Amino acid sequence: MNLIEDLNWRYATKKMNGKLVPQEKLEYILKAARLAPSSSGLQPFKIIVVSDREKLAEIRKFSFDQSQITDCSHLLVFAAWDGYSNDRMGKSLAQGANERGLPEDSVKGYQNTLWGMYEPLGQEWHQNHSAKQAYISLGIALVAAAEQKVDATPMEGFQAPMMDDFLGLKELGLKSAVIMAIGYRDEENDWLVNLKKVRTPEEEFFIEM
Amino acid sequence: MNLIEDLNWRYATKKMNGKLVPQEKLEYILKAARLAPSSSGLQPFKIIVVSDREKLAEIRKFSFDQSQITDCSHLLVFAAWDGYSNDRMGKSLAQGANERGLPEDSVKGYQNTLWGMYEPLGQEWHQNHSAKQAYISLGIALVAAAEQKVDATPMEGFQAPMMDDFLGLKELGLKSAVIMAIGYRDEENDWLVNLKKVRTPEEEFFIEM
Repeated sequence: MNLIEDLNWRYATKKMNGKLVPQEKLEYILKAARLAPSSSGLQPFKIIVVSDREKLAEIRKFSFDQSQITDCSHLLVFAAWDGYSNDRMGKSLAQGANERGLPEDSVKGYQNTLWGMYEPLGQEWHQNHSAKQAYISLGIALVAAAEQKVDATPMEGFQAPMMDDFLGLKELGLKSAVIMAIGYRDEENDWLVNLKKVRTPEEEFFIEM
Repeated sequence: MNLIEDLNWRYATKKMNGKLVPQEKLEYILKAARLAPSSSGLQPFKIIVVSDREKLAEIRKFSFDQSQITDCSHLLVFAAWDGYSNDRMGKSLAQGANERGLPEDSVKGYQNTLWGMYEPLGQEWHQNHSAKQAYISLGIALVAAAEQKVDATPMEGFQAPMMDDFLGLKELGLKSAVIMAIGYRDEENDWLVNLKKVRTPEEEFFIEM
């Protein structure tokens, strides 16, 4: 299989059958999500993996009652930093330097330049910027799931403030950005499974210059 | 090769060698980017493919003089809708319905619900939301490039208003969100190529619940 075939195989599964995704497949998907690139390598988000059935039932209540929330195997909550700060960015950059065997202060200049740009942009910009990085990881996690023949539904239809409260994200300095249910399609009961995949026509979607 | 190997092979190439990416590989990457999912299937962005060398030289001037802009083979500019409107969303949804052989008015109810939610959120929210969808596609395009052993650098370091002016994006109702240079690494002159890939440690990046 190649990527194009995987992308054609996948679809935003509307009805899942409750079957569990084996641990090694879950770990593969998470591994890929973690390898996603991010702006300046900051990785300004975390992934909360929810599999507790009671928690999922609660989450469904503030997620427009979408059945995938409880019929999935695991729900991945992509939670972005609720803001940049000089300290937060410094910690992330220093961690990278450490792992590369470089002195921590080798990244100080870069950190200061970056913070000089980010600080005046304000917290709402920070939050959107962090969330965008999480969306790169979401795209890659969707590919990973398809490669493993695991169905996945990316979802924005949930009450983010309620999710943040319920998962205690505020205390972690995070805000839920987007969620992804993984599991297996219930082919007989999914209205979308046999509908043609539609995309903007190539001649409209691409502009050559 | 599998996805994890591809993700470990890729890196944000800092120095490219000017070699051109064959047309079929370019098309493969674009095809994958177009297959990316998006919220409600609206695909609220386009991809501008810039290969004209003079244009690239101009773009480099407002992109912090980053050498990949001129040493790449093609520059993909992910340009998001500058706002949602009832018409714009309706056109996209109707196109999908048409392609599925469904009557156009079958999506009217959904369109109205969606616009009822989006309208009060305002244009800045619209723009961020559209851009986020483009980032999913960016993530998938990065995977496609790596699968094709084409190097790619995702970049946010450019003056977006100048990019929009230069490419005439305003007239198209678009705003540049993120760019991706594709080409081939210049191994001898790239300071990053041999540095260890670093990511947030797993125990920090994932939270199980």
